[in-house]
Amino acid sequence: MKNALYAQSGGVTSVINASAYGTIVAALESEGIDRIFAGINGIKGILNEELLDLTEETRSEIDRIPYTPGAVFGSCRTKIDSDEDFDRLFRVFDAHSIRYFFYNGGNDSMDTANKIDNKAKELGFSLQVIGVPKTVDNDLMETDHCPGYGSAARFTAISIMEATRDLRSMYSDSTKVFIMESMGRHSGWLAASGSLASSDRFHGPQIILFPEVPFNEDAFIAKVDDVIVREGYCSIVASEALKRPDESYISTAGYYDSFGNVQLGKIGQYLEKTIRDSLKCKVHVAIPDYLQRSSRHIASLIDWQEAVEVGALAVREALEGVSGVMVSICRLSNRPYLKKYCTVDLERIANGTKDLPREFISEDGFHVTEEFRSYALPLIQGEAPNLYLHGLPIYENLERRKVEKLL
Amino acid sequence: MKNALYAQSGGVTSVINASAYGTIVAALESEGIDRIFAGINGIKGILNEELLDLTEETRSEIDRIPYTPGAVFGSCRTKIDSDEDFDRLFRVFDAHSIRYFFYNGGNDSMDTANKIDNKAKELGFSLQVIGVPKTVDNDLMETDHCPGYGSAARFTAISIMEATRDLRSMYSDSTKVFIMESMGRHSGWLAASGSLASSDRFHGPQIILFPEVPFNEDAFIAKVDDVIVREGYCSIVASEALKRPDESYISTAGYYDSFGNVQLGKIGQYLEKTIRDSLKCKVHVAIPDYLQRSSRHIASLIDWQEAVEVGALAVREALEGVSGVMVSICRLSNRPYLKKYCTVDLERIANGTKDLPREFISEDGFHVTEEFRSYALPLIQGEAPNLYLHGLPIYENLERRKVEKLL
Repeated sequence: MKNALYAQSGGVTSVINASAYGTIVAALESEGIDRIFAGINGIKGILNEELLDLTEETRSEIDRIPYTPGAVFGSCRTKIDSDEDFDRLFRVFDAHSIRYFFYNGGNDSMDTANKIDNKAKELGFSLQVIGVPKTVDNDLMETDHCPGYGSAARFTAISIMEATRDLRSMYSDSTKVFIMESMGRHSGWLAASGSLASSDRFHGPQIILFPEVPFNEDAFIAKVDDVIVREGYCSIVASEALKRPDESYISTAGYYDSFGNVQLGKIGQYLEKTIRDSLKCKVHVAIPDYLQRSSRHIASLIDWQEAVEVGALAVREALEGVSGVMVSICRLSNRPYLKKYCTVDLERIANGTKDLPREFISEDGFHVTEEFRSYALPLIQGEAPNLYLHGLPIYENLERRKVEKLL
Repeated sequence: MKNALYAQSGGVTSVINASAYGTIVAALESEGIDRIFAGINGIKGILNEELLDLTEETRSEIDRIPYTPGAVFGSCRTKIDSDEDFDRLFRVFDAHSIRYFFYNGGNDSMDTANKIDNKAKELGFSLQVIGVPKTVDNDLMETDHCPGYGSAARFTAISIMEATRDLRSMYSDSTKVFIMESMGRHSGWLAASGSLASSDRFHGPQIILFPEVPFNEDAFIAKVDDVIVREGYCSIVASEALKRPDESYISTAGYYDSFGNVQLGKIGQYLEKTIRDSLKCKVHVAIPDYLQRSSRHIASLIDWQEAVEVGALAVREALEGVSGVMVSICRLSNRPYLKKYCTVDLERIANGTKDLPREFISEDGFHVTEEFRSYALPLIQGEAPNLYLHGLPIYENLERRKVEKLL
């Protein structure tokens, strides 16, 4: 028996299940794979031998997976490091004849996949490990962009377009500043995507704040004031991860996640207070939080399709005997948008992060350049289809047959 | 000359421009109206004689109005009370031969419309005043529901469906509670709409907090704890306007708007801290703010159509010589959804608010009843169409020809 195991890791994207679908369907259709399993809650469930067998699921339920937000099999933020963990993991792989392992995640998860690949080689255990990229943050190394980013960027751009129209309706005797907080732990890619809402015809957001640009409160307040004087209102997208010149985060919730990443929070309200105190005007703040990364209803068609494809190509690579790589996307041109898929060694990705390049940020540090817009616009193209009944989306309802525990 | 004036007031909805479209197109098509004007920023602009003449706008731009969020002509929170204001207002009406006035707004705005109608009668000034209803809060008196509510309800239901899928993906070793703050200054209609996301098959939100139910912190924490123990995660929709048993707001921003309404804020973060302190688990909070009322991209088809219709019917009533009324919606049946339009005296609406009835709230006060679901589900049906180019919505680009000031 040669079985395949797929699992999801880290924060979700609105198209991570499109990658699940691509991987699972490619595995189901292949001749080299006998059964296809999914780990419940990523590596955490695998360590507990909690697996689902998807081989007998009906085609119609499988086909609903890419319409579903969240992570259909559950995700985790678990790291494996100890010898006990690796020993347990390979006993699970061995007991269930797992020869192909597809891990769908971001930086931290590619590190995990890399360690598993190295361990398999060390043990002489026959296992193909392929990383399937995923992150709304777009900060994965060695790929032009990452599935999940385009859809979160589309949510960001459309939301700030709509909210800026709201702000412009009311500024004459009410709120003059609107701030939308954006996810993006290390990098300003998502905040930058708000710029796609702005055009010559309609200004807003007029200010974008990036973690790559040290936050200068005086310059910021002067900029907001200037925008209000010229245009009457000021619409802002602010990264949750703004930093002081000394690299410390401006706003933290005071605790850490299990990967040791500091929990960020409430930069919007910090900025609100700063503006209200300085400029004495009414400020509104939106914190979309999970909505930004889960808004499947507004996913980009390009992003959705690419998410399917990286999953399917991971299976193809594995069946060709490749291991220890992640499927990545190389761009050939912006307009028209052309790309090709390639693979990169997990070693080169693990735990690194890719900042927004300086040439994508405007000289004053408060907006993007045309280069960024040319880069990002192709990624939000098209409307990924939705299934609706009574005005509400329909999601998967898999049978979720559990694999019998053998250990 | 018999000209018509349309204006927008108060907080916007994602379909207020559909009502603008209905009113404007009905006026343009009518034989009894010469020119159709729009007030810039509602009554505030009218007092300053700031009017747009829409009579010569191209059909193709007029037809884009209902696809646009915000208030295309600008809105305001201005009250008129003084004799000077009324004197000025009627001089503007007289100078521009305005015989029909359509005011598109909520409770406060219907009060303004009512005062203008009374004053016209007192002055013997020939003027038909018709209110066009609008509010995401759904708390307008004397109408089954209000245009704007269905679309904000649809945003709320779909957003909490998506975010709860996200939460369920991660709860095993990360966030266990997700809170989405909902607009609704006086009433729990919008918070209640989150319930449409929950089904027998998929639980969430499991808790809804209404301003109509005095907030009991101990009972709340016990409920959250119980849900986590049973289901592993707890998804919550909380009204921004939660009150203590003594009727005071739990969370205020400490200042007031120009209608004297207290500014509310950050109930989500109050609840986050309460849960974190009591239950020691990780909590995520989303505050959609303007996104909830401006999300035109996810508007309900029924709501969008009704918004057009109340505008068009307002013109029809005015042309029949009616004045001092608002167009309202009377429901005939829930399933299939049937309704008819009627009119109600502005006097009966002005400044009142309609709470969520007790029979729509579950016995324990933490959810809705089936009766509410039967009431609300018809209002979120269908997808209002969107115009997209390069993945982004296209909005109106009216010529906005200003009317020459005569005063």
